[in-house]
Amino acid sequence: MTSDVARQVRALRETVARLHGELTRYGLVAWTAGNVSARVPGRDLMVIKPSGVDYDDLTADTMVVCDLDGTVVDGHASPSSDTAAHAYVYRAMPDVGGVVHTHSGYATAWAARGEPIPCWLTAQADEFGGEIPVAPFALIGGDDIGKGIVSTLSRHRSPAVLMRNHGVFTIGRDARAAVKAAVMCEDVARTAHLARALGQPLPIAPADVDALYERYQNVYGQRPAPADRAAGNP
Amino acid sequence: MTSDVARQVRALRETVARLHGELTRYGLVAWTAGNVSARVPGRDLMVIKPSGVDYDDLTADTMVVCDLDGTVVDGHASPSSDTAAHAYVYRAMPDVGGVVHTHSGYATAWAARGEPIPCWLTAQADEFGGEIPVAPFALIGGDDIGKGIVSTLSRHRSPAVLMRNHGVFTIGRDARAAVKAAVMCEDVARTAHLARALGQPLPIAPADVDALYERYQNVYGQRPAPADRAAGNP
Amino acid sequence: MTSDVARQVRALRETVARLHGELTRYGLVAWTAGNVSARVPGRDLMVIKPSGVDYDDLTADTMVVCDLDGTVVDGHASPSSDTAAHAYVYRAMPDVGGVVHTHSGYATAWAARGEPIPCWLTAQADEFGGEIPVAPFALIGGDDIGKGIVSTLSRHRSPAVLMRNHGVFTIGRDARAAVKAAVMCEDVARTAHLARALGQPLPIAPADVDALYERYQNVYGQRPAPADRAAGNP
Amino acid sequence: MTSDVARQVRALRETVARLHGELTRYGLVAWTAGNVSARVPGRDLMVIKPSGVDYDDLTADTMVVCDLDGTVVDGHASPSSDTAAHAYVYRAMPDVGGVVHTHSGYATAWAARGEPIPCWLTAQADEFGGEIPVAPFALIGGDDIGKGIVSTLSRHRSPAVLMRNHGVFTIGRDARAAVKAAVMCEDVARTAHLARALGQPLPIAPADVDALYERYQNVYGQRPAPADRAAGNP
Repeated sequence: MTSDVARQVRALRETVARLHGELTRYGLVAWTAGNVSARVPGRDLMVIKPSGVDYDDLTADTMVVCDLDGTVVDGHASPSSDTAAHAYVYRAMPDVGGVVHTHSGYATAWAARGEPIPCWLTAQADEFGGEIPVAPFALIGGDDIGKGIVSTLSRHRSPAVLMRNHGVFTIGRDARAAVKAAVMCEDVARTAHLARALGQPLPIAPADVDALYERYQNVYGQRPAPADRAAGNP
Repeated sequence: MTSDVARQVRALRETVARLHGELTRYGLVAWTAGNVSARVPGRDLMVIKPSGVDYDDLTADTMVVCDLDGTVVDGHASPSSDTAAHAYVYRAMPDVGGVVHTHSGYATAWAARGEPIPCWLTAQADEFGGEIPVAPFALIGGDDIGKGIVSTLSRHRSPAVLMRNHGVFTIGRDARAAVKAAVMCEDVARTAHLARALGQPLPIAPADVDALYERYQNVYGQRPAPADRAAGNP
Repeated sequence: MTSDVARQVRALRETVARLHGELTRYGLVAWTAGNVSARVPGRDLMVIKPSGVDYDDLTADTMVVCDLDGTVVDGHASPSSDTAAHAYVYRAMPDVGGVVHTHSGYATAWAARGEPIPCWLTAQADEFGGEIPVAPFALIGGDDIGKGIVSTLSRHRSPAVLMRNHGVFTIGRDARAAVKAAVMCEDVARTAHLARALGQPLPIAPADVDALYERYQNVYGQRPAPADRAAGNP
Repeated sequence: MTSDVARQVRALRETVARLHGELTRYGLVAWTAGNVSARVPGRDLMVIKPSGVDYDDLTADTMVVCDLDGTVVDGHASPSSDTAAHAYVYRAMPDVGGVVHTHSGYATAWAARGEPIPCWLTAQADEFGGEIPVAPFALIGGDDIGKGIVSTLSRHRSPAVLMRNHGVFTIGRDARAAVKAAVMCEDVARTAHLARALGQPLPIAPADVDALYERYQNVYGQRPAPADRAAGNP
């Protein structure tokens, strides 16, 4: 690696390690399940969690760098057993800079029934632009999970997809955005579950869903300063 | 600003920043959703959370001061995307000194069905004086949310209102009272949900609801010392 | 007070203040709801939480000492608004050394339906010796709550009683035992709720409930050393 | 004991004490319920939690060493009231190096209905290889609980068994693996509960369950270095 790439990789190792702390903070993962990865911008490389390592023991140094075929390029540990799925997404979706996988409970309950999460909440319209879709059942080990993620997300605005009987994958322009989508996916999955548990939630009109999504994607949050934007750090 | 107003604003910046910690402590918010504001007493000003900033990064300095049209008067960040709703409430309800907004899960589940929370609990009678009402669906961006809050709360004793398909707004004589109402709203929304999940909860007689509300509003807690009362700090 | 009583009171102030931390640790209370008290052994006195004070601000010094009519004997704050109920229990049940009150969510959900919690769990047989009963609706302010607690618990082995539409009171030989009963009451209320939510739980034969209760009350835990027993510190 | 055994016992006292922290971290236990034990490799000895001691007060020194009849060999406290069940499992299943017992809520709710947890989740196929079975009702005090655990687990791939109306026992090649099984058992019990609460979850084909189990047991996680393997520390 050139020293520029080495610097980028070093920074992403730290970011990815730290972002796993959001998965435990929000209760999205049990034991060593769940993983975050980040694409190294402009390179066919990604930084990903090692397989089966305790969340308490995740540091920048224990992260693994792989190419986009999932082959380890730098790191002492085996990468996440979900590496093939992350790699497939980066190969197929060039705008994606981060991928997250969890088995968060409420979202996975919808996935176990094979039901998309209907858009009953303005927070879901904001972040997901409508329902959160379900991808077909796929076994781990080849490209089936990756294909399911990509083919499903290509047809939706949602950055989250429920894998049938399995869990959640989310994408984002960077790893932080993908983690946010994972947090919000569980939050809306939970509220939607609670809402339907006692009756029939009310729909939001499609035009209102569109208006909410449009506004949130373009108005919410702080405007990045020009320097931040140039550094790819909005 | 005169130095008196500057001192008040400084104190409220600290109070409002710190009160956001209660929203995370009680699990009322995910990621950057949710916000607290406080009116500057006797001024057409309010202190409010910046938009889309992490709860860990909220400090007195990052809070934003706006006038009651929502225009920023002091602060480096964009104010909460819910600023218009807070401002509308302060303009319309002169006794309100604090406003809180969350998407807390159990309360929002009632809101997604468009159902008020019936008064099945003495704690709800104490704090809310009866059912917690629902305001009509409203899009963010103009005064519709503010109007929904004010017109609904004007007809109820409750300091909390469920916004249909959206979440909760609460009011109080100060920001702390509004935060308390947000915490108690989720608590009673949860217990009411659990109660109805397995059968039909028993009603409380309206006269008993009145007696509980009257007592709690006037007897509960510590009597403020005269000095505290003069300082508007009960 | 004699210096002996003063020492006892001082120790109980510390114990009672600290035990409130278990109510927050186990999520049994929201905001300032819930309270713990302890009888001063051999005296017509009790130590109880002040009314409406934050859990973070509870210290030995802020606790209030009352006689068994609820009159403040020592302390700068107003005692808990539930003081009359605690006092009634101590007057009527001489073996009770501690009383706890919460609105813990699952237990209060059973209370809102006016349903006792059936004994479907060995842990409930161990601690409660059978179902957890419900007392009639009672308004705060006089002796009605105290009477409901005492008349209901006198007819059951359970150290916990559900107050209809209200919450839970538990008793124990000391404050710690009453807190344990409050923690276990919510735990079994939750599991029983979850069990019945998806079907009909299986009963435990009454003779097995008796055997479990008998063993747990007499065999479980560490044998106190003779010195501990003499100090009333089992 | 020889100094070799003494060193082994010392290390296991520390491991077992520390692993109890995972039971509280994941909310699997209330008050003093729940316990972890470890077999001393190659010896008819085990290290187990003392009975009725606070989780905060568990240290290496407070752990108890028993022989496989449950008789205390080293330690100042009475061992867990579930010692007989742990001992029975070690006598009957020579490959088991760790045993865990909890009353974790969702799993115990399935146990209260006497229902095995169907395999609706890939995470359950991974860890448990199919459904999590139920053992018959058994009273504490003799070998009935131990017999129920052993006879049920002998007929399943699952390292977890639900004790009817009671709770969960899990086994592992060491104490850490048994704790992992206890954490994952509650996690899948919860998601399965949530899934079925709103409809009928979709089955996973038995051949897919087999493929997932086979892969997870043999591929997941880090390959132990040869030195670790020799030390029995994979």
